[in-house]
Amino acid sequence: MREVAVIGVGMTKWGELWEKSLREIYTETALLALDDAGVDKIDSLIVGSMSSGLFIGQEHLASLLADYLGQAPVPAARVESACASGGLALRMGFIEVASGMADIVLVSGVEKMTDVNGNEATYALGTAADQEYECYHGITFPGLYALIARAHMEKYGTTREQLAMVAVKNHHNGSMNPLAQYPYKITVEAVLNSVLVADPLRVLDCSPITDGAAAMILCPLDMAKKMKKPVVKIIGSGQATDTIALSSRKDITWIESTYQAAKKAYSMAGKKPQDMDVIEVHDCFTIAEICVTEALGIVEKGKGGKSVEEGVTSLQGKFPVNASGGLKAKGHPVGATGVAQAIEIVKQLREEAGPRQVKGAWVGLTQNMGGSGGSSVVHIFERT
Amino acid sequence: MREVAVIGVGMTKWGELWEKSLREIYTETALLALDDAGVDKIDSLIVGSMSSGLFIGQEHLASLLADYLGQAPVPAARVESACASGGLALRMGFIEVASGMADIVLVSGVEKMTDVNGNEATYALGTAADQEYECYHGITFPGLYALIARAHMEKYGTTREQLAMVAVKNHHNGSMNPLAQYPYKITVEAVLNSVLVADPLRVLDCSPITDGAAAMILCPLDMAKKMKKPVVKIIGSGQATDTIALSSRKDITWIESTYQAAKKAYSMAGKKPQDMDVIEVHDCFTIAEICVTEALGIVEKGKGGKSVEEGVTSLQGKFPVNASGGLKAKGHPVGATGVAQAIEIVKQLREEAGPRQVKGAWVGLTQNMGGSGGSSVVHIFERT
Repeated sequence: MREVAVIGVGMTKWGELWEKSLREIYTETALLALDDAGVDKIDSLIVGSMSSGLFIGQEHLASLLADYLGQAPVPAARVESACASGGLALRMGFIEVASGMADIVLVSGVEKMTDVNGNEATYALGTAADQEYECYHGITFPGLYALIARAHMEKYGTTREQLAMVAVKNHHNGSMNPLAQYPYKITVEAVLNSVLVADPLRVLDCSPITDGAAAMILCPLDMAKKMKKPVVKIIGSGQATDTIALSSRKDITWIESTYQAAKKAYSMAGKKPQDMDVIEVHDCFTIAEICVTEALGIVEKGKGGKSVEEGVTSLQGKFPVNASGGLKAKGHPVGATGVAQAIEIVKQLREEAGPRQVKGAWVGLTQNMGGSGGSSVVHIFERT
Repeated sequence: MREVAVIGVGMTKWGELWEKSLREIYTETALLALDDAGVDKIDSLIVGSMSSGLFIGQEHLASLLADYLGQAPVPAARVESACASGGLALRMGFIEVASGMADIVLVSGVEKMTDVNGNEATYALGTAADQEYECYHGITFPGLYALIARAHMEKYGTTREQLAMVAVKNHHNGSMNPLAQYPYKITVEAVLNSVLVADPLRVLDCSPITDGAAAMILCPLDMAKKMKKPVVKIIGSGQATDTIALSSRKDITWIESTYQAAKKAYSMAGKKPQDMDVIEVHDCFTIAEICVTEALGIVEKGKGGKSVEEGVTSLQGKFPVNASGGLKAKGHPVGATGVAQAIEIVKQLREEAGPRQVKGAWVGLTQNMGGSGGSSVVHIFERT
């Protein structure tokens, strides 16, 4: 297998982009990534999107985007693993470059979620759960994560305030990210007083509905060394699945797919959790970040809530988590999230993260998750 | 890159499978393929499905299927390129094995299309065209292919009877395939007298709406040589895109994406069109087979219709096309089609095709297509 590097990244401001279509937001970010990499031709294109069929009535997405980007007849693939579609796109791009099938691969994620109404969006997002065994009975994603939160509180004494602190930390970081959908600081009180969605989760525990895209260019490391930009290597890629229905799990507070994916990525990279300088995780709900930091091995099992309170995962802490603002503040266009996480790590390792820069960051990790943990994708990056 | 082999295939009878869910038809075929290969553990799972979101309200499909198959925490990816999703899954599995990331990869395609009504199915299939520039104005897929058919008739003198002969040939072959949805012979008169769908195409020019799945097991060639079954190598893989909207093409009778994908596959395989002993192509409509045989280079440009009439593509002809019955007789569960095409070639090269066996078949080709040719995937297989 060839070594793989990231040589270009592109992202535009996320939010409710009613004046733009999916193909427009995709193309803007793809062109930025090509420009950043200093290339104009690609050998292959991979795009992660969770549900362009339900959100905008468009499948055959990769071909559409290759066409609109002016890159046909390039091979183009769309991949899907619910909210981990972006991470999966990165993994498939990594494999394609590593295999020798393609040199320059454009990896993107995109989702246009605000062209449907709230009920339709909730239905579309619910397709990441088990349609027959979960959604049919009326549960939605805030409900599933509320069950996880309640179980974590009961089992480990995690407090309502600790959940809120995840949102406060991520909005603090996000306030320094001009591309974030909600770059505003919030307080614990604001979270605790926000509208109840699914007890104990309130609206400020939830990531928003977002339109957005993110793009990056991969190539073999040998080729990357000739580029002018600082080169970031992808040194580990792990993906794993778990039962899709929460009810089938032995312990709903433990995200086994993240544990398994991280184990593979650490092993491939030859690294330990302690080696990670900057980390982006899938905080679709505040409780998710708590569970994920435990499964990644950067905090002790059951101590995810306490670690947030103690500042372990803050920008100045031992393991800065979600410097970008996370899904919570940056927004969560589901298929795009995994690629945007990787872009944040690349920016951090290139020392281009501005006021939210983690000093001396040399190794970074991304964790992207589908559904309530039915799938996870973990990547590890290193500065050269 | 490592050499890649197919060591197991699995398929069940296709049709209107109202008594089974998507996960059931998927699992049946996956278990058959595992059994055929003589393995019970896989390293990775890739599934092609065009629109499980619109057809059954289920995304996060690969995780669901890994779970239901009892293979979690295996990495699982769903890929989509409209009706070429199955071919794309095969290509991604080929790349994964070639790269060294995984040894045993389960590649499948699946679609459950009959749980929605006809209007909903037409809408879902329309998402393979350009939603904004084509579907919005009211055109559907029979309409798009009718435009291609009319143009081909005008430009090359292709006759209405020649179109019918494609359906007659494929139903003749399909009558010998017990897994086909419609294993019945038809006549030219029956096609010409069937209900008009979009002039000049009649209902017997169109592939049907189908529930079905197909599965195969890939592994490195070195590992395959230890298996008891005859080993079939994948010696070429090509994928290409074209404008998604028909109106953007210079010549709508020419499928450029198939030409480009085939060119890459022939080059990788070190073969010419003349070397192909058995060929499966994407006959979603009769006119499609005519255009595709031209783009593959097995018949002269403009002579696709005449070649059918002359028997060039019949089971006893120089280039037997769609020995399986094709999409026309076998059925067309969109995401599954590309994998089923590959299964037919594997059976032919293993000499397991029964009464429809092409004698002495040594090299075979599959061509799977998305939309009206917005994407094509071509694979070439060789007996060892």
